[in-house]
This record gives sequence, C-alpha cells and structure tokens, in this order.
Amino acid sequence: MVTVGELAEHFGGEVRGDPNVEIHGVASLSSAGPQHISYLASKRYRTALADTSAGAVILAREDADRFSGTCVIVDNPRLCFARAAALFNPRVAFKPGVHPTAVVDQTATVAATASIGAYSVLERETVVEDHVFIGAGCYLGPRTRVGRSSMLVAQVIVSQDCVIGQDCIIHPGAVIGSDGFGYVSDGQRWVKIPQLGRVRIGNEVEIGANTTIDRGALDDTVIADGVKLDNLTQIAHNVRIGAHSAMAAQVGIAGSTQVGEGCTIGGQAGVIDNLEIADRVHITAGSLVTSSIKETGAYSSSLKAQPASQWKRTAGRLSQLDEMAKRLQVLEKKIERLSGARKA
Amino acid sequence: MVTVGELAEHFGGEVRGDPNVEIHGVASLSSAGPQHISYLASKRYRTALADTSAGAVILAREDADRFSGTCVIVDNPRLCFARAAALFNPRVAFKPGVHPTAVVDQTATVAATASIGAYSVLERETVVEDHVFIGAGCYLGPRTRVGRSSMLVAQVIVSQDCVIGQDCIIHPGAVIGSDGFGYVSDGQRWVKIPQLGRVRIGNEVEIGANTTIDRGALDDTVIADGVKLDNLTQIAHNVRIGAHSAMAAQVGIAGSTQVGEGCTIGGQAGVIDNLEIADRVHITAGSLVTSSIKETGAYSSSLKAQPASQWKRTAGRLSQLDEMAKRLQVLEKKIERLSGARKA
Amino acid sequence: MVTVGELAEHFGGEVRGDPNVEIHGVASLSSAGPQHISYLASKRYRTALADTSAGAVILAREDADRFSGTCVIVDNPRLCFARAAALFNPRVAFKPGVHPTAVVDQTATVAATASIGAYSVLERETVVEDHVFIGAGCYLGPRTRVGRSSMLVAQVIVSQDCVIGQDCIIHPGAVIGSDGFGYVSDGQRWVKIPQLGRVRIGNEVEIGANTTIDRGALDDTVIADGVKLDNLTQIAHNVRIGAHSAMAAQVGIAGSTQVGEGCTIGGQAGVIDNLEIADRVHITAGSLVTSSIKETGAYSSSLKAQPASQWKRTAGRLSQLDEMAKRLQVLEKKIERLSGARKA
Repeated sequence: MVTVGELAEHFGGEVRGDPNVEIHGVASLSSAGPQHISYLASKRYRTALADTSAGAVILAREDADRFSGTCVIVDNPRLCFARAAALFNPRVAFKPGVHPTAVVDQTATVAATASIGAYSVLERETVVEDHVFIGAGCYLGPRTRVGRSSMLVAQVIVSQDCVIGQDCIIHPGAVIGSDGFGYVSDGQRWVKIPQLGRVRIGNEVEIGANTTIDRGALDDTVIADGVKLDNLTQIAHNVRIGAHSAMAAQVGIAGSTQVGEGCTIGGQAGVIDNLEIADRVHITAGSLVTSSIKETGAYSSSLKAQPASQWKRTAGRLSQLDEMAKRLQVLEKKIERLSGARKA
Repeated sequence: MVTVGELAEHFGGEVRGDPNVEIHGVASLSSAGPQHISYLASKRYRTALADTSAGAVILAREDADRFSGTCVIVDNPRLCFARAAALFNPRVAFKPGVHPTAVVDQTATVAATASIGAYSVLERETVVEDHVFIGAGCYLGPRTRVGRSSMLVAQVIVSQDCVIGQDCIIHPGAVIGSDGFGYVSDGQRWVKIPQLGRVRIGNEVEIGANTTIDRGALDDTVIADGVKLDNLTQIAHNVRIGAHSAMAAQVGIAGSTQVGEGCTIGGQAGVIDNLEIADRVHITAGSLVTSSIKETGAYSSSLKAQPASQWKRTAGRLSQLDEMAKRLQVLEKKIERLSGARKA
Repeated sequence: MVTVGELAEHFGGEVRGDPNVEIHGVASLSSAGPQHISYLASKRYRTALADTSAGAVILAREDADRFSGTCVIVDNPRLCFARAAALFNPRVAFKPGVHPTAVVDQTATVAATASIGAYSVLERETVVEDHVFIGAGCYLGPRTRVGRSSMLVAQVIVSQDCVIGQDCIIHPGAVIGSDGFGYVSDGQRWVKIPQLGRVRIGNEVEIGANTTIDRGALDDTVIADGVKLDNLTQIAHNVRIGAHSAMAAQVGIAGSTQVGEGCTIGGQAGVIDNLEIADRVHITAGSLVTSSIKETGAYSSSLKAQPASQWKRTAGRLSQLDEMAKRLQVLEKKIERLSGARKA
C-alpha cells in the first residue's frame, strides 16, 4: 500500500485532491475501484475518466482540469503509469534451483541464483548466469549463454552457440538460432548452404511468442540492446537490428538487412533483403520496404480497406492505370493542338 | 456400418437410388470406394462426381439430377457431410489419468475423467475440468482453468490466470497469455508496461497451431464462444473477438480492437489497434483495416498479383498518380476555356 | 585441413595463386583470416573482396581479374562455397540411442542407428528409420513415420498418421498435421468438419521454425521432394507443393491450392484457395495471388513503401481513381466534339 502523495513524490508528479488516498494496485479507468490508481493518456478514454471509480488517476495537466477526483499530474501519464504498475506488480520472485526433471549436461554452468524449470534441457557447455529464469520445457543448445537476470518464460529454443544478454525476456515458443534460409540451385535442386553463424542478442531485449530469429550464414545475426520484437516476427539470417528498435507482430525482416536504432515497424510490415534502414525510421503496418531508407521519417505503402464494391472498382481501374496515363498524354497533345489552332 | 437409408433419415435427407447400400466411412469423390459416402458442395468438383466410385454421394437436388448413382439429397451438402464424417470418425476416446511424467502441483485440481499427457506441467492452483484432454508437453501456468471437454492437443502454453471454456480445441504450439506488446518511451529506451490482464476464452473456440493470444494490459483479452482462429494468427492485448467470428491463417488483430460477432477475416489480413468492427463483417485476404467498420458487409484492400512486367508498369503509374490527377484538372480547365471560347 | 589445390580439384575449379595454401574452414570475406576460404557471388561484396584477409577466395572468372590473392575460379561461386562449407562443417555425428527420458510406446519401431532426444514422446506404431535424429521435446503421434536420415531439430510436432520422407530437416516449433481450418455454418454457429487426411512430406524437404502444415480434410496435404519452406509459413489442408519449390518466411498457401515444381515465393506472399500455380512461377514478396497461374514467369502485386506524406497523397488519389477514369472519359468526348466542331 502506498498513498497518492507518496506515489506523486516518487514519480515527480503534482497531487491535486487528497494525497492520503491509499492505493493498493493499478487498474483501468473502467475497472478501477477506490483502492486503485489508474491513468489517462489518450483522448479516446476521456469518457471513461468521467465515469471512473478509481481512487486516483495519473494524467496530464490539461486533463486534470476536467477531472474532479484525486489525481497525480505528470508530463507523461503512460510512462508514469507503467512505473506505478511495475511498483505494485514486481516480477514474482522465483525459487532458484534446478528442477529435478531438468536435463542439464555436466559441463553446463548454472548460477546458484538461477532457476531451471521442469523438463528443460541444457546441452554441453551452456552458461546460465545469475538470477536467470529458465521456464518449463526450454532447450539450450551446446555453448549457448543466457545473461544475468534474463527470463525464458517457457518452451523457448536457443540453438547452439547463440548468446542472450542481460535482462532479456523471451516469450514462449520463440526460436533463436534456427538455420537461415540459405540455398543455392545446382540447376535441378536446392543445395543447402550451411548456416555457421550465431544469433547474438543484447541486453534488455524482449522477444515475443513464436518469434523466430535465424542464425547467420557465416557471421552473426545481431539484435542490439533494448530491441522489442512482438509475436510471430521473423528475423532472417545476418539481419542486424539497431538498439531500441521495436517491431509489432508478424513483421518480417529478410536476410542481411540492417535496421537502424530507434526504428518502429508496424504489424505485418516486411523489409526485403540486403537493405539499410536509417535510424528512427517508422514503417507503417502492412507496408513493404524494397529499397534502403537513408532518411529518418515515416514510410508507408499501406492500403486501407474499403467497402468491397468500391474497392473492386478502384482495383479494376488500377489495372487500367497505364492505359489511362497514355490516354491522358494523348489528350494533352490534342488540347495543345486545339489551343494552338484556336489562337491562329 | 450404416446404410444410406439410415443416414438419410438421420440427417433429414431424401434417398435416390439404393437405400440399402452399406457405408463404412467417408471419403472424397476421387478417393471413395463403394463402402464410402462422399459429397458434392462445389461446382468445381462436378467432374469428380461423374467419375466417382463412392457407394453414395450427399448432394443438393440440382446436382442429383446429373448423377446416376445412389445419393442423399439435402439442402446443405457440406454441413450434412461434416456431420456424417463426425459420425464415422468420432473423437478418439482417451484414457483418463495423469501420465507419470506429468508434473502436477499438489494444489492443482484435475478431474478424474481428464487426461494429462506426458511431460505436461500444471502449476499451482490450476483447474482441469471433466473430460479435458491435455496432450503431451503442455504448460498450464498458475491459476489457469481449462473447461469441460476441452482439448489442448500438445505443447500448448497457457500462461497464468488465463481461462479456457468448454469444448475448445487448441492446436500445438499455440500460446495463450503471453505479454501484450506494451511499452512507453522514456525518451531513450522502451519502458515495459506490465501486462496485468488475462485471456478469457469462451466455449467451443478452436485455436490454430502456433497462434498467439496476448494477455491484456489491465483488463482481459476476450475470445467469445464459437470463435475459430486458424494457424499463426496474432491476437493482441485487450482485443475482444465476438461470438462465432472466424479468422484464416496469419491474420493479425492489433491492441484493443473489438471485432463483432459472426465476422470472417481472410488470411493474412490485418486490423489496426483501437477499432470497432461491426457484426457480420467480412474482410478479404491480405487487406488492412485502418478505421472502424460500422456496417455489416464486405471490405477489401486486396491487390491481385499480375504478370510482373505488367505490375511494374502499374506500380510505376501509381507513383505518378498525384501528378496525373493534377494534369487532369489542368486539362479540364483548358477544355472549359476552349469550349467557352468556341461558343463565343 | 585441405589445400586450395585439393579444393579446386574436388570442386572442378581453377586455381590462381598458391595451391598450397592450407584451409581450415570457411568464413565471410570480412571475417576471414589466412586459414579460411571465402567467396564472392554478389557485386555488393566487391569492396569486401579488396579488403579480405582470407587465405583464398572462390569466385567467378570476371572477379578473379580484380583480385590479387589466391583464388579458385568456378562458374557458380555460391554453389561451390556451399559445398566447401559443408565439407568443413559436416553435420555433427550424433550418438544413436533413446534418451532415458524419452517416452516411446512399446509398439513403436525405432532403428538402432536413430537418436531419440530427451523428453520426446513417440506414440503407438510410430516408425523411426535409420540415422534419424529426433531432438529434445519432439512429439510423434500414432502411426507417424520419419524416413531415413531425417532430422527433427527439437520440439517438432508430427500429428497422427503423417509421413516424413528421407533426408528432411524440420526446425523447432514446426507443426505437421494440425487440423485443417474446415468449418461449415449451420446458420448460427460453425460446425467442425473432421480433418481425416494426413500430411505426406517427401525427401530432402526442409521446413522452417514454427511453420505449420495442416492435414488434409479427406485426402492428404502433400509436400513433394526437395521443397524448402522458411519459418512461420502456413500450408493449409489439401495443398500440394511441387518438387523443389521454395517459399520464404511467412508465406501462406490456402486450402487445396496446387503449386507447381520449382516455384519460388517471396516472403509474406499469399495464395488463395483452390488455385493451380504452374511450374517455375515466381511470386514476389508481399503479393497476393487470387487466380490460377498457367504460365511460367514472375508475378507481383507488391507495393513499395515511400515517404509517408507522398504515399498519403498517392493513396488519397487511389480512392479517387474511379472518378478520375470517368472524368477522363468525359474529357475525351468533349475533345472529340471540339475537334469535330473545329474542323467544321
């Protein structure tokens, strides 16, 4: 339990209303009760603000003026709320130790403060550092390393030689270090190109459920510090993702492409191979990037769904576009001649 | 074994031909032998109908007239066939009991009629109801519940506090309750927003292989009764999917979007965050929905592949479209002036 | 260790420089040291060639002329390098045997030369042929077969009755034989159509991480010899993929579609149901194929991302396209009349 006043002081906010309100947890505006603190960060929830039963609300100054209840005024309500939520919901402490059913090679090094879950398999020379949590059913291939305080939630696969940094979270079903998709045709069939690189993941990286990150063909696939990858995302061999870039679900980055720092990529977008994307580039959902991007900014090729009959007409016209362009040119020439004649 | 006559009576159909034909199973028109019953529901298989060796065929009246063999006439052949197939292929009865290798917390409640498979892990206070089948290698986090007669085929992950209803089927590799993709920037790095909600799945829901459904940020992610999700589908935090909606593979629904009842979403389509989609909306494959849909109907932004050289021209013209529109306007003005002058 | 001369002889290449250079392994041009052999196959790495410390480089004749170091000249450097890489990095020999923690039904048949990994589950009547490697945590359902020398890396699911050929590699998290997405509406809810077919995978097929291949509804889903599927790919029920076709990540092929031989499908592309795609068809990344393709060649509907403000204008004009087409027609008629009048 913390009072509103204590929270405000902790987070550098200003209290309006009763600083002695006791807060026991966080909740959404619509679900909160008097013992909860909530927040408003988006206009779309202003109605919920008016109706809330929350004991206190974290919000920006402009919204505080429309609210009669107790509030904590900050510049960035979402950020403040994230921190409040973490305060009231610290990561559950786990019991260190190796589950009796875990299969751990005798050459593996597991810190005494780490936890290895039921049915996990650690192959030879794996290294698990302090305070690491390896959940049930994980697989760590030979010579893999998991850095301090990282967490593999459950059923995560890390293939041989891959390295995970500190303070990472990897969600269930993620596969780190599967073979890159490398083949060369001999004229009749595809000959496999052995994938001899690794995956190197930095610190504070979060990797979503069922996301796949392939090992490099020769050199490594590298995910820098602070990167956040959502679920079902594909990172191909030899891709390099710059620090603090974030990708929503089902994004695909093809082989050897480099993504800069602080980029944000919307869901289902794709970037083809061997490109360079500058820092702080934003790519909208569903877009396909087919050439390198040198300048910071937003890029898009998203097409918005419309009523199907309307789209049918648009798509039909699209296929006539080349012809329309030519007819336009013809018209322009005719108009020129007519105008010329007219002046005569 | 059932006779054609008995099947027809069971399904409310009319026999034409020999009601005493003995049927031992179902098969496709092209693979069927005299002991099989098959069906025709689509024009595209009419050739197969002419050539079939099936003992009997379920079909609509209009198709019965072109068929000389024994048939069962119904209004909805596909539906009737689905039921016949289920009749001849009932779900395999399983032996109840907990596999000796399953790790089941002593505080877990497992019905005596349920089956817990090899290497499954049930954490504290999990509840598994009657006739549930938990296949090999599943993981049920603390306080999760699986409702009566549901089936987790194998290697399904259900994270803490999530709830699955009755008569559900969840295919291998599905992940229920991974963290929603919630972060807020502090100016330099992404700060994680704890995901404190759950996933609540209703009754008769079917979830495809490797599909991921994220827990809510504060409130729950909710999948209503009768929803069908195909493989590799992403359901983000706080999404609500209405009853009996169905989504084909690789669809992505982004955070907090509400999908109505009886919607159908084609493969690889995407719906961005914080939208409301009305009931009985159909979205075509590959489309991207970027604004709320208020009216029942079909919506699309699917672009159909064409020969690459043709597409290259079209795509080239697309980038000139803004310029073409301006040139069109210029022409319209010139024509007006010329027409005006002409009349003078 | 092999000398450059020996390698050249082995691969039918011509040595330029010192044939006695000793090679111990392969590396990329930028990472290689004097004991490595590297290769150049793409113009984009020519700078790296100039700077390399590699002991020798595999390249084409035209590139040999710009290189002063020791090289092996071949027609197809990438193919030659793939073979060299395989030579120096043979697949790790594994110890045959069944891990004590593997659960193997007494009716299963496992070759003495095969390896069954920790926590794998083999159900009744499964067959595992010679030199097969089944990694940790795999599941083989009743009556499944895995052909000679195939490898299931780890946590692969193969559902009942499915068949995998020889020399296949299946990456972690792949699901073979989940139910096809088959339902029919009874007016109110979706009725499940039992999926009674299987998946049949040929020889030398490689299946990526977390890829899903559904069993057929009645007949089988068939993947022919030599097919290569990347990660997170969806193959729906009753699809047939022809020999040596390759699909990059996140591709989706919908139900009953037949893909010819030697096709290549770019990442995130989709092909709708019940189509026939001819042999040696190439589909570009992100495209959607909505009608059968009868002729070999490249097909596309990929839209390239542009600066967002530019795209906004283009997309805005796209929605006006139908109207623009009509205005163009009106202009053409007016010009005709004006021209006619002018001549008068």
